[in-house]
Order: sequence, then structure tokens, then C-alpha cells
Amino acid sequence: MAGPKYLTGDKAGIEEFLAKFDLFLFDCDGVLWSGDNIYPGTAETIEMLRAKGKQLVFVTNNSTKSRADYKKKFDGLGIPAKVEEVFGSAYSAAIYISRILKLQAPKNKVFVLGESGIEEELKSENISYIGGTDPTLRRDMEQKDFLSIADGSALDPDVGCVLIGLDFHINYLKMSLAYNYLRKGAVFLATNTDSTLPMAHGFFPGAGGVGAGVVKAHGKDPLALGKPSQAMMDAIEGKFHFDRSRTCMVGDRLNTDIQFGIEGKLGGTLMVLTGVSTKEEILAEGAPVVPSVYLDKLSDLLG
Amino acid sequence: MAGPKYLTGDKAGIEEFLAKFDLFLFDCDGVLWSGDNIYPGTAETIEMLRAKGKQLVFVTNNSTKSRADYKKKFDGLGIPAKVEEVFGSAYSAAIYISRILKLQAPKNKVFVLGESGIEEELKSENISYIGGTDPTLRRDMEQKDFLSIADGSALDPDVGCVLIGLDFHINYLKMSLAYNYLRKGAVFLATNTDSTLPMAHGFFPGAGGVGAGVVKAHGKDPLALGKPSQAMMDAIEGKFHFDRSRTCMVGDRLNTDIQFGIEGKLGGTLMVLTGVSTKEEILAEGAPVVPSVYLDKLSDLLG
Repeated sequence: MAGPKYLTGDKAGIEEFLAKFDLFLFDCDGVLWSGDNIYPGTAETIEMLRAKGKQLVFVTNNSTKSRADYKKKFDGLGIPAKVEEVFGSAYSAAIYISRILKLQAPKNKVFVLGESGIEEELKSENISYIGGTDPTLRRDMEQKDFLSIADGSALDPDVGCVLIGLDFHINYLKMSLAYNYLRKGAVFLATNTDSTLPMAHGFFPGAGGVGAGVVKAHGKDPLALGKPSQAMMDAIEGKFHFDRSRTCMVGDRLNTDIQFGIEGKLGGTLMVLTGVSTKEEILAEGAPVVPSVYLDKLSDLLG
Repeated sequence: MAGPKYLTGDKAGIEEFLAKFDLFLFDCDGVLWSGDNIYPGTAETIEMLRAKGKQLVFVTNNSTKSRADYKKKFDGLGIPAKVEEVFGSAYSAAIYISRILKLQAPKNKVFVLGESGIEEELKSENISYIGGTDPTLRRDMEQKDFLSIADGSALDPDVGCVLIGLDFHINYLKMSLAYNYLRKGAVFLATNTDSTLPMAHGFFPGAGGVGAGVVKAHGKDPLALGKPSQAMMDAIEGKFHFDRSRTCMVGDRLNTDIQFGIEGKLGGTLMVLTGVSTKEEILAEGAPVVPSVYLDKLSDLLG
């Protein structure tokens, strides 16, 4: 396998690379911005790609935001984007539940461990749910909860699926409910299983971290609908109908973004060094996942 | 390997078996009681063993209770026991930190994810700690927390160890703090890594479930100080100075209790069928862990 090509400062190499693709799938955090801080040159790079006639899709594993929330974030940071260009893992999960899982009534309710972004996307697909941001579940576990969860009286008999995403309000009560719905046979899904969440130039537990307690108790992994799961690539393809050989995945993480592009048999993968993975990782002898090309930062595409 | 011997109703076999041992290590839940319900004959069996001059140690992975809490539980159920005979995973962790890890000042503080049982045992070994039941950490994560944890200003520079146990008040803020102390190099310990907690005739996330988010984010497992970790056996031996060949482990779980006794090279292991593991599991062809003997219930030792 040829090593990844370093394109920063290589004008001709960049031109040649860009010409190979009609569509760019973009990871967001660590590529376009870090938390609420846009990287210099991001908006100009996006505009340059649009000017060249490239189609853009913003693919994010962040499940706390809906596509509409994301659109607001793009607007606030001054990056031109449309709601239809955003494809988040919460939306991916909603699409999977409504169009592939097709839960049959009455057992068609989803118990959500997550924030409003998931709820909004479930609503957009007319999926009924409980949990999520329900304020009555944001409290300590009490003795009566152990009894009513154990005997089933606290469980909604219509729940047929547990969907786990990033929940900043995770607690023992919600973990116990999710686990006991699974014990009763609910289908187990996750928006994504990212172990960490980059925020404020630091790292925090990601959706995979927040959901790990339920996974550990249950002893089985969920089907993940975010990168690198190809269930997400299939969902994107179902919506955008693109030619994989003329598509490039752009990201900062080897084990999510780049792996997602490689397993999806895309024409290319571009890694930037402004996020999680490092140059050392991709240049290491026998590195398991490497991008086709890499740049110090996205705006190096401006040449 | 000879199969396990069934001793229920076998008076001569029981006499012969008891004569081999001076010390019995007892698991509690599923052996002596289930939750708050004592099994019939438990107190009489304990008294019979004492009358025969046997030494008893009660070994439990439950980290929410201190030895003093456990003593209260024994009293309440009418089982004669002394505080010194109780050896919980919280105490095991405290012993490990004070006598083996020996953290050097100033970096000798422990960040606790757990309840008061852990705090009491740390106090008993004069170990300073933060976290635990601190009410100021029982709240939602706020934007300012992301900033102050990421830049380190919210982190106590004296923390040299993260200890995870069963925490019924787990939240994103505490998970984030624990994970970031680990990122700064803190030693990673767990009282135990039980995936589930049997309660109220049901199952709930155990210490291993509660801690799994931090483990997933950090990407490394903690050293566990509960069964079946031999770190716990070493701690028990350090306190009681017993002859392993004349010691028997009594329990209801193959993959914690019985494995603990076998790996500790004890003279014998006794399994009772009143808890988690079943007769089918130990009699299965090629069963990976089997006890030396088994009984329907503990009180069958009375003959």
C-alpha cells in the first residue's frame, strides 16, 4: 500500500487531487472548526470548492444537534451551507428506524438516551419516542425505581427500540431503563460510538462513552448509525445518489472518518491534522488505516 | 479435571470437606442472602462453622457499603459477624492505595467515582480524596465546565489516582473529570468491574457498567481490586495471613467467586445454587471454571 501523500504547499498536487472528485463528504469538528471556533480559511475553502462546482455534504457523528441546529451553527460561523447538505448521525438513525427497521405498532416506540437533536430527527420521520430530554428522568434513582423497573411496571410496553446518542444528562435512572428495555428484547441502536468528544480544545466522553455503561451491562454492542458504520454511507447514498469513485471523504480521525471512506470504497480520503489523529499515526510502519492524502489544515487546499 | 462433587445430603462428604479447611472466604449476596432477604438457615450455618473453630471472612464486591455498613446489614439480618471479618472491594482498594501504590505527596489525592462506602474506607486508611458524594458535583455539565476542565483550571493538581466504584449519581460532569485526570496521568483503579447489579429481583448496571464510560473514553482498563482480581486476594492475605491450601472460597458466581478461589490457588471452592450461576453451567462439557464441590444451598452444610 502506498503511503499517504502530503499536499500542503503542493499546488499542482492539490489541483490534480481536486479534479478527481465531484462530491466531498466533510466531517465538521476538527476539520472546519473546533467547538465554537472556526479555523481560519474554512469559509474561503468551502467557497472555493463550490466555485469549482463541487457538491458538498457535511457528515457529522454529533447527535446532540439536528440538521436545523447544524445549519444555525454554519450560519453563525459564516460558512455557507444548506440544511439539505447536513447529514448527522441522529438523522441517519431516524432514517434507519423509519425506512429499514420499520417497527410495527404497538411496539414501535423508541427509548432515547440523548439530547434534543435526536428527538427532532425522530419527529421529522414521525417516530414516537420517550426518554430523551424528558425532565422527569433528570433525577436521582430512588428505591422505588429499582422495584418498578425490576417488576416492569415503570417500563412502557410499547418500546421496541433503544437508541443511544450523546447525552449530557446521562444518569443511573436512564441507564437502568435503557438496559431493562434491552433485557426485554428491544432493538439496540446507537447514533454513533465515538469514544471521545473534542470540545474547547480538550477531550470529553463521546456518545460511545456515554452509552458504554448500557453496553457493558447488556453485554452486546448496538448497531451504530454513525461513521464508520456503512449503514450511514448507505443512508447518505440513498439520499444523494452519488458516484463513489468520484467522491472524497475529508476528516481528522483515522478510525471514524478515514475508515468510513475506505470501507465505503470512495475514490479518495483526505485527512487534516487539525483534529484527533496525528501525522505520526498515519506514517507509522504498518498503520492499519491511512488516508490517500493529508494536509496540515483544510485551508491548505487554497494553495 | 475431575467434575465438581455434589454434597447436598452427603453427611460424610460434608464432614470430610469441612475438615480440610481452617478459613472460609464467603461471598455474601446470592450465598447468605438475596438483597434484603436472608436465606433460611444462614445464621445457623455460620454459627456451626464458628463452633467448629473455622475462621470466616466475608468478601464482597459491593463498593457502596463500608465494612461498618456491612456489619449493620449482618446485624439486621441476625447473622453474627465482626467488622474485622468483612472485606469489601472499597476496603481492598483503600488498602491497595495506601500500602501498595503509596502515592507520594503532593500528588496523593484520589478522585472518586462512587458512594460513601468508598469514602469511608479511604478515610480509614488516611487517604485524601475528592469527588465521591460531593454535592457540588451532582449537577448538569455547563459550558464553563467544558472550558475549565479542558484548560485544567477545574482539575486539582494533587490528584494522582482515579478510583471508580458503583456510583448511583453518575453524571457527565463526573465522567469528564475522571477521564481528564486519567489523561493527565492518574493511576486508574476500580473497586470492581461487575457489569450488573442484582437488585429487587432484577438487574441494574453494576460498577463495571457505571465506570464503562470512562474506560471507553480513556481506552484503557483500570486495575480492579474486587473479585476475581488477585490484587484483592493479596490484600486479604496481607491482613489475615492464612494458609491458602487450608482455605475455601464459597460463592454463587463462577466468573467472580469460583475463579477468584481457583486463581488464588486455594485448597477448595464451594458453589451454592442460590445465586447467579447454575448447575448446568458447572456440569457442561468443557466448562472453563468449576468449583471443587457444590450444594443446592449453603444451609445444606448443616447436613
